[in-house]
Amino acid sequence: MTHPSKPLDTLDHTHDPALRSWVPGTAGHADFPIQNLPLGIFSPPQGTPRAGVAIGDSILDLPALLSANLLSGAAGAAAEAATGTGLNALLALGAAPRRALRAALSELLSEGCTERGRIAPLLHEAAACTLHLPAQIGDYTDFYVGIHHAENIGKQFRPDNPLLPNYKHVPIGYHGRASSIRPSGTPVRRPHGQSRAPDAAEPSFGPSQRLDLELELGVWIGPGNELGTPIPIGEAQDHIAGYCLLNDWSARDIQAWEYQPLGPFLAKNFASTISPWIVTPEALAPFRVPQAARPAGDPTPLPYLLDAADQRGGAFDISLDVLLMTPGLRAAGLAPHRISTSNTRHMYWTMAQMVAHHASGGCNLQPGDFLGTGTISGPGRDACGSLVEATLGGKEPIRLASGEERRFLEDGDEIILRARGVREGFATVGFGECRAVILGAVA
Amino acid sequence: MTHPSKPLDTLDHTHDPALRSWVPGTAGHADFPIQNLPLGIFSPPQGTPRAGVAIGDSILDLPALLSANLLSGAAGAAAEAATGTGLNALLALGAAPRRALRAALSELLSEGCTERGRIAPLLHEAAACTLHLPAQIGDYTDFYVGIHHAENIGKQFRPDNPLLPNYKHVPIGYHGRASSIRPSGTPVRRPHGQSRAPDAAEPSFGPSQRLDLELELGVWIGPGNELGTPIPIGEAQDHIAGYCLLNDWSARDIQAWEYQPLGPFLAKNFASTISPWIVTPEALAPFRVPQAARPAGDPTPLPYLLDAADQRGGAFDISLDVLLMTPGLRAAGLAPHRISTSNTRHMYWTMAQMVAHHASGGCNLQPGDFLGTGTISGPGRDACGSLVEATLGGKEPIRLASGEERRFLEDGDEIILRARGVREGFATVGFGECRAVILGAVA
Repeated sequence: MTHPSKPLDTLDHTHDPALRSWVPGTAGHADFPIQNLPLGIFSPPQGTPRAGVAIGDSILDLPALLSANLLSGAAGAAAEAATGTGLNALLALGAAPRRALRAALSELLSEGCTERGRIAPLLHEAAACTLHLPAQIGDYTDFYVGIHHAENIGKQFRPDNPLLPNYKHVPIGYHGRASSIRPSGTPVRRPHGQSRAPDAAEPSFGPSQRLDLELELGVWIGPGNELGTPIPIGEAQDHIAGYCLLNDWSARDIQAWEYQPLGPFLAKNFASTISPWIVTPEALAPFRVPQAARPAGDPTPLPYLLDAADQRGGAFDISLDVLLMTPGLRAAGLAPHRISTSNTRHMYWTMAQMVAHHASGGCNLQPGDFLGTGTISGPGRDACGSLVEATLGGKEPIRLASGEERRFLEDGDEIILRARGVREGFATVGFGECRAVILGAVA
Repeated sequence: MTHPSKPLDTLDHTHDPALRSWVPGTAGHADFPIQNLPLGIFSPPQGTPRAGVAIGDSILDLPALLSANLLSGAAGAAAEAATGTGLNALLALGAAPRRALRAALSELLSEGCTERGRIAPLLHEAAACTLHLPAQIGDYTDFYVGIHHAENIGKQFRPDNPLLPNYKHVPIGYHGRASSIRPSGTPVRRPHGQSRAPDAAEPSFGPSQRLDLELELGVWIGPGNELGTPIPIGEAQDHIAGYCLLNDWSARDIQAWEYQPLGPFLAKNFASTISPWIVTPEALAPFRVPQAARPAGDPTPLPYLLDAADQRGGAFDISLDVLLMTPGLRAAGLAPHRISTSNTRHMYWTMAQMVAHHASGGCNLQPGDFLGTGTISGPGRDACGSLVEATLGGKEPIRLASGEERRFLEDGDEIILRARGVREGFATVGFGECRAVILGAVA
């Protein structure tokens, strides 16, 4: 099975770092400069949910822009599809209308745009708005492509042989729970669950004592495929509508007891938090990099996972941060503690390989389906995407400037994930925050 | 944590075996006598999808019944909720409106009903209609509560210790794929996938050589719960809107290679087939039985899984059949081969325990979510709910009257699942068929 090798996203004037927006406070914005233009669903104060575009510290009302006749052609068709309370219909359209919308928005929001006076009233202060999930999620699948994470976790179970034999052949993934995915800012309730303490003969039921985070990227599926019709690796990019941050909260004590033989279940389905903006493939084009060379001796991917363009530029160089704010740090007026800094370069499989593998047996992906990469850890203790890695399973706590220490998360702790593409000669493109605070378990 | 023990479904006049319908061919119908009245979504010839009720070999158009002012009060409200192309809103209403609708339908379809002349035109011949999925499925979760299946599978991997230590404490489950669930009659395409032959050094990619079925019951979730709010075991029944048959097709060669450490993925997500009628808890009330006594030495369930009413009558006595029709049997004019006969009594955990466990960590269940029981095998080779059990992993083929033999499924094979509640002094209540034929893999 061979496929034509299609070029990936190209750079155009929308990526020009010299491009400036007339929207105040946008120049040099760490997340949402005019080169980003991510899509989401928001409610303005006293307003109903609608589609919007993040620009600096503002949100542009997309249906209002359409009603004002400021979008036409393919861009108008894209905005037309974004008139519901979820972006599924827009995601379904694929790349061409999405790119047309990006080009039109870039022009309308650029310095010198003559329509500025008509557009300015359609902007809302982001801080005053409520962000929602950007689409109705059909199915959620979580992968396991962070090889350092897989090794770190594997070492705790199998010190001599941390990676299972299939890891370098199969983009390992499993189905997750869509109903409990929430946008950034929604508190997370500590789950009760069944676990068996290492020294106990019998399991018990109670609040999780080993609550953890997982640093992941999320993938929003675009057009998708019919049941029974695989997606060739060379076309997989066409089915990705964008990306966000994902914190796949995990209860390690519940996980250890329940996960054999069918995988994690209640340990992961009590909550997942995502950043609410869909950062498009176009916005991330400057941060494309070749897939990391596999170490000598690693197997070549099977043909259904191998594509020259994907090898050349299917990976991303996006820096990732995990920050922890605790009640103690907050009380002392201290900044959040940085648990780790990682990078999407540490993915062993590309996004396209995840998509092609998922559909390789005929499983149908649908607009608004959601994929997680799995935890993206880098090498070293300061690059771990979860506490179970950073504390070696709770054996070596993290010490904070407040005098507190953490093995796992405590009530009142808040985790903040960040992702940014940073490249010399380009504007920085960020994902916005993915944050949530831990609430105590129900009585 | 203790909960009030609520009574389960009670028997009323709708269960009276003497009840007869005026609809021709309904008396003694093996699946859909007037004592059943399952709900579904169907399209009449040249018509659009709508809600319907199976009665004998006919389907009653529910919105048409409502439009004809033949339903009022709570029954009318229930039918009002069933006016879309999925029954989610009706499922969300819970037991009281569903029971009122059952009582009204039972009266309208009974011999002696004076409205017969107005109702008869609203009936369609079932054989001429198309059946659809009865609801939009949000999330699909598959359990593993068939203990003989767990033992049979476990023996093939761990002869001395087939059941893992958690099995008798935890209703083991995992998340499945909702997008690829299809109603009975939809053909199933043999999946390609990655596997590693026992004697091979490297994996390869190609059509599955070990395609299998799994005999399961499906559970339709009713009202459900808010994220963070568990469902007490004593209330779990209130969140079950009904049941159907489920064939959870499985590619054993793909499964064996991919499932460590996160569970089955592509081996299971290429297709699942369900019987299209939602058989209500009310219809199955006569077949309630006490939960089987746990063998001496088995642990008592933890309190969050233990409820006196559930122990007394939370299990079901429903007989299950797996039939295989092959091209050879078809050509020879022979009947399908019965692979096995099993029974829902072989579930180690009840439906209520599955629901309460699922929500115990706060995971939110939503109307139209779908649960599978896992494969329900009985003791013995003629009670296996999958071929990997019945043929001992393909070692001992099944021999058919056509001279063919089967280790796993071949192209053109058709699997038919049946489920029936049979009890002295009551009408037999069936689920209808769950059938699908295997198509060859895509080239």
